[in-house]
Amino acid sequence: MNAKTLEELAAYVGGSVRGDAAVPIHSVSTLESAKEGEITFLANRKYKKLCLTTKASAIIAAEELESPASLLITEDPYYAFAQIMDLFYGKPDLPESCISPKSAIAQSAQIGENTCIGDFVSVEENTRIGRGSRIYPGVSVGKNVQIGENCVLFPNVVVYENCRIGNRVRIHANTTVGQDGFGYATHRGIHHKIVHIGRVIIEDDAELGAGCAIERGALDDTVIGKGCKIGDHVVIGHGTRIGPHCLLVPQVGIAGSVVMGHHCVAGGQVGIAGHLKIGSGVMIGAQSGVGDDIPDGTKIFGSPAFEALRAKRAYSLIKSLPDMWKSLRKMEKKLAETADAEEHGTARR
Amino acid sequence: MNAKTLEELAAYVGGSVRGDAAVPIHSVSTLESAKEGEITFLANRKYKKLCLTTKASAIIAAEELESPASLLITEDPYYAFAQIMDLFYGKPDLPESCISPKSAIAQSAQIGENTCIGDFVSVEENTRIGRGSRIYPGVSVGKNVQIGENCVLFPNVVVYENCRIGNRVRIHANTTVGQDGFGYATHRGIHHKIVHIGRVIIEDDAELGAGCAIERGALDDTVIGKGCKIGDHVVIGHGTRIGPHCLLVPQVGIAGSVVMGHHCVAGGQVGIAGHLKIGSGVMIGAQSGVGDDIPDGTKIFGSPAFEALRAKRAYSLIKSLPDMWKSLRKMEKKLAETADAEEHGTARR
Amino acid sequence: MNAKTLEELAAYVGGSVRGDAAVPIHSVSTLESAKEGEITFLANRKYKKLCLTTKASAIIAAEELESPASLLITEDPYYAFAQIMDLFYGKPDLPESCISPKSAIAQSAQIGENTCIGDFVSVEENTRIGRGSRIYPGVSVGKNVQIGENCVLFPNVVVYENCRIGNRVRIHANTTVGQDGFGYATHRGIHHKIVHIGRVIIEDDAELGAGCAIERGALDDTVIGKGCKIGDHVVIGHGTRIGPHCLLVPQVGIAGSVVMGHHCVAGGQVGIAGHLKIGSGVMIGAQSGVGDDIPDGTKIFGSPAFEALRAKRAYSLIKSLPDMWKSLRKMEKKLAETADAEEHGTARR
Repeated sequence: MNAKTLEELAAYVGGSVRGDAAVPIHSVSTLESAKEGEITFLANRKYKKLCLTTKASAIIAAEELESPASLLITEDPYYAFAQIMDLFYGKPDLPESCISPKSAIAQSAQIGENTCIGDFVSVEENTRIGRGSRIYPGVSVGKNVQIGENCVLFPNVVVYENCRIGNRVRIHANTTVGQDGFGYATHRGIHHKIVHIGRVIIEDDAELGAGCAIERGALDDTVIGKGCKIGDHVVIGHGTRIGPHCLLVPQVGIAGSVVMGHHCVAGGQVGIAGHLKIGSGVMIGAQSGVGDDIPDGTKIFGSPAFEALRAKRAYSLIKSLPDMWKSLRKMEKKLAETADAEEHGTARR
Repeated sequence: MNAKTLEELAAYVGGSVRGDAAVPIHSVSTLESAKEGEITFLANRKYKKLCLTTKASAIIAAEELESPASLLITEDPYYAFAQIMDLFYGKPDLPESCISPKSAIAQSAQIGENTCIGDFVSVEENTRIGRGSRIYPGVSVGKNVQIGENCVLFPNVVVYENCRIGNRVRIHANTTVGQDGFGYATHRGIHHKIVHIGRVIIEDDAELGAGCAIERGALDDTVIGKGCKIGDHVVIGHGTRIGPHCLLVPQVGIAGSVVMGHHCVAGGQVGIAGHLKIGSGVMIGAQSGVGDDIPDGTKIFGSPAFEALRAKRAYSLIKSLPDMWKSLRKMEKKLAETADAEEHGTARR
Repeated sequence: MNAKTLEELAAYVGGSVRGDAAVPIHSVSTLESAKEGEITFLANRKYKKLCLTTKASAIIAAEELESPASLLITEDPYYAFAQIMDLFYGKPDLPESCISPKSAIAQSAQIGENTCIGDFVSVEENTRIGRGSRIYPGVSVGKNVQIGENCVLFPNVVVYENCRIGNRVRIHANTTVGQDGFGYATHRGIHHKIVHIGRVIIEDDAELGAGCAIERGALDDTVIGKGCKIGDHVVIGHGTRIGPHCLLVPQVGIAGSVVMGHHCVAGGQVGIAGHLKIGSGVMIGAQSGVGDDIPDGTKIFGSPAFEALRAKRAYSLIKSLPDMWKSLRKMEKKLAETADAEEHGTARR
């Protein structure tokens, strides 16, 4: 890694320097672990006091603060940190261009310039992979697939036939794109398979974690919108359309034919039932179970899920159910005694 | 795709035609997207009015209805649609027969006629794969495995040694069959592995989604019954026996030594604890947590799960807990005031 | 399998014999299925009466009991059973040593003695794999990885660059180790990737199930402690540190930057939010959702999770919510009537 001066980094992210602009920075770290020559960041005020003792040479921060380190002041420190991480470490670890002789590429497949195909990769007939893409070992790409430019498919990813993958898409290891959806016509106790002819379309700049499973549509396509970031082990049902820039945290499951807007966030292990309409900007708390349409901009929580503030209060009261139960029984008894006393004229008074 | 006349399709599914029996049909679609030359279906009356405006040339329906399209009348339209999808599109996309020179097949393995083995497939000693099966690239099949006829194993499926797979079984990409179960003997704080010598047996006509994990038994076999359809990311524990024709929706987890009857349905993300007996025809709502034996024909819901109708009412009342809490506190206060008043003879009256 | 006498087995596990010490044992089974020549065990008194009718030649038990079978008496029968299973069946099914000519091993990679590399395994530059390890077909190991001695990586496991795996670690099929964590800096509606430079460190004697996904850290390492046993489909977030000897049951999800102590147990489908501190010896019931730090030795349950005994009582009361609701409404009505009656001087008495 070549070192950069703090001034160079400030220029790169569009920020300004307080302190030693010439200090050389060669790496990144946390406030707690940073050593000389490293830059770190303060995005959460909770950690402000760590700035007093950090050994880092520089801190990216939104405002001036007390620290032995020099400062790189910028509006959005975490974003600046992401940019600097990318500057230092964002290079792919595959060579610039190579087609492994141990791969199996169909004659009719088209591989773009500067694209790297690893060992034991199989690419079927009529498939196109754009320039600058990196296909790691063991990936299997079916027939008639289109993969755009500068994509990365990590080892053992599987893409079924006819799927469409945009530009700069990253798909982590062991993820499956385009398997048949869970669709059967049950006739006299036998479940008959619905053949699936829809595709999966993954738009530009999306990233999928490891071990995901994205079902192809039965008739319509399944769509993962532009810029979506999807965690490990997320399952998306057939014909579901996820709008742009959504964040789906690991282990989320979305059933089929759901339409989700843009900029939604679903927390870990969330489940969404089929055929629902989820608006834009919807935030869904971890482990929630969603069974109804959700309007734009709503925050929801719980299983079953409803408006988050009320839901947090309501679910936290489950803890008090034994007390409520006791209290109810006590009052019932009291009321019964009173009634009884009144009936028989034996009230205390 | 060769076109068929509506009359030919009606004969194929055992239905009758209203309208133009000679209209050529070359594809399938939804009521909304269908174009001339396409057939669609009406299985849910909710969408009946779309029949008035559909551009489809034919609709499969259970009864006569108003539409510009011709009708294919049959008792179970969704099943007929499944049959026609299969007729048009049900062909495998691997060639009829080929053994890739880039596969690795042990000398003692037996591969049936018309079976296709893709690139980078590894088949270990003494394994048999029946005729007409299609093994996609990157699949790994261990020693002494038996796979029946007309099976499809999609890319990167792994089958561990000794497992048994019936006929016409389909297993989607990145699914694992036969890994050791989660079994350890904890002795003085150290977890000692239980060696697993049971097998996984997958019976005829079962289908497994992508990224599933089916544990082999420790001593007894794990069994997936005939005709079961299992969604993506389902995990089945060691020694569990799933009866025939069950539907397990994506992300279901069933612990070890469970015995499940036939024709059960488990919704998305359901969890079932170990050693339980689940009857036949049991329906388990999404995200339920099952901790008790369940008798035949029961519908259950919730975590913890109980009878579904009561459970839906009960879980929906969590929303009202803050109101119940307030109401309780109010009554307690009132009763306390009354008691106090009576005590001191200061009751209003 | 060569038979052993019961006496030999007793000596092997440090127990003593009641009955025929010379009886030959060639296999293991359950109390119900065992046949002559087989040994079984009684670890749960619930099954004691099966000992009266078992066809096994020997039973491992903690104390004398009535049975036609001979007995192997030892303090911890299940542990003894695990040892005997291992004695009979614990051998790996790969040959002692081989490097498949169909693998792809970088020139700078170092492979230890007696290590077996299967077909279509890819090992990148500067990676070291210790002696006696078994790497099954289709495994992909990135650059600069270190894997210790006597490890087993089952088919299609993926290990990303720079990760560290200790000795005697077992990783089941289709598991991913070291993919990027779910970390993005959202700036003006666009999610910018945080480049991940931390590693995954898996310590000695850990076992990971099939289809797991262990994220590398962004800056700090993700750590799976010594002797941890992790079920299928477990997802561990970036920078999380799991202490030694924890048991994580299938489908558990742990978000990033969690610190968990030693000897914890998390039941199936448990979710743990990010940045939490989970003490040692913590037991978390199945499907729980953990949103707070948990002190040492605590048992918790529920979503949201709290102390297990109270939680079991509280969650079981959800069933009674409809009754509580009715009871509340009834009392409110009664109190309102009483108040009304008193107001108007029309009380019964």
